[in-house]
Amino acid sequence: VSTNGGPLTRAGKTVGILIYPDAEVLDFCGPYEVFATTRLDEDTRRESESPIRQLLVAESKEQVRTSGGLRMLPDADFATCPELDMLLVPGGHGVRALMHQPEYLDWLKRMAPHMDRLASVGAGSLLLAEAGLLIGKTATTHFHSVDFFRERFPSTSLLPELSMVVDGNITTASSIRAGMDMALYLVAQIYGHSIAREAARQMEYPYPDEQNFRPRNGK
Amino acid sequence: VSTNGGPLTRAGKTVGILIYPDAEVLDFCGPYEVFATTRLDEDTRRESESPIRQLLVAESKEQVRTSGGLRMLPDADFATCPELDMLLVPGGHGVRALMHQPEYLDWLKRMAPHMDRLASVGAGSLLLAEAGLLIGKTATTHFHSVDFFRERFPSTSLLPELSMVVDGNITTASSIRAGMDMALYLVAQIYGHSIAREAARQMEYPYPDEQNFRPRNGK
Repeated sequence: VSTNGGPLTRAGKTVGILIYPDAEVLDFCGPYEVFATTRLDEDTRRESESPIRQLLVAESKEQVRTSGGLRMLPDADFATCPELDMLLVPGGHGVRALMHQPEYLDWLKRMAPHMDRLASVGAGSLLLAEAGLLIGKTATTHFHSVDFFRERFPSTSLLPELSMVVDGNITTASSIRAGMDMALYLVAQIYGHSIAREAARQMEYPYPDEQNFRPRNGK
Repeated sequence: VSTNGGPLTRAGKTVGILIYPDAEVLDFCGPYEVFATTRLDEDTRRESESPIRQLLVAESKEQVRTSGGLRMLPDADFATCPELDMLLVPGGHGVRALMHQPEYLDWLKRMAPHMDRLASVGAGSLLLAEAGLLIGKTATTHFHSVDFFRERFPSTSLLPELSMVVDGNITTASSIRAGMDMALYLVAQIYGHSIAREAARQMEYPYPDEQNFRPRNGK
């Protein structure tokens, strides 16, 4: 495979998806669907489950009103969230409010060092940056957030013309569509292209071409 | 505009989205995002709301576990659902169970005559067919359901090679991706292409080309 995430595995992974008020629905439901649709064995698709266990994580276990008012129930809160292999931070109108909430920033700082991978979609990269996780790194963000990002985080090299940027174990995607491509990229990185390709096929979603899967690295 | 849904409007619309156990998340979150992202005036995008009010409708108001275990809270149940301008029925592994549940079929039969539009994504068309709403009509469905659909509903002309089929006021889409294209088509039909195009742009989602927006009609 052309991805550079080390040896492939068949091990189960636990992915946390951060949800919060006014998180953009497709920023997290797109990747969620990709991960949920992943199967290690295509022949037993219907009877088997994804190797990726997903947890919606929120500050508390109360219902969360995401964009447009869609109400979700989180699976875990900050206090009880188990160890994660990966965390995905979606964007949305609500993200800027989180940048002033120490609960979110402290939780991110506490969890990040123990995870194999961190990912964001759209303006979600603002929260990673605010938590100090993108210092000296390269990232992308939603096109509406470019000026704000550059002004506030001059120590991050922002490449908004790229739909996906991989820098070490942090992957940022610019938007909804890019977030789904990124999720397929992450599945390919962990389990290989053929498994990621089957997930895309099941969704009748176009598998990103090699070009999209070879994002320029930050450094 | 090239769509044929009658004169354009600026009126608000109420769209119901049916959710049920194991409904496919992106089958309904894709269109949901399109409708939620729609604005009549681009200049006031952030401060204003979509002209499309969306209600997740379920059999009861209890939480619903959709595909992969994502838990949603419905906005309305069958007993209290207000009048709808449009209903969207998503597909998913859970849809076949509904075909044997009179509560769902009766509700669909009761609501359908009072709506301007009916839409389904993926295997959702099976439920419309089971409720007798596709007799003598043309439709599409998820590629996994083609044989089953044809055997059970011989009086419906199935065109699974089309990603979207419009037959009168019923629009069916084959899959997740097609469901998002269909939602953009419906927005264009109601409010015009320029408004639908702005919703797509906001999502960085490719606006379907004219070809996709000119699905062959059933008759």
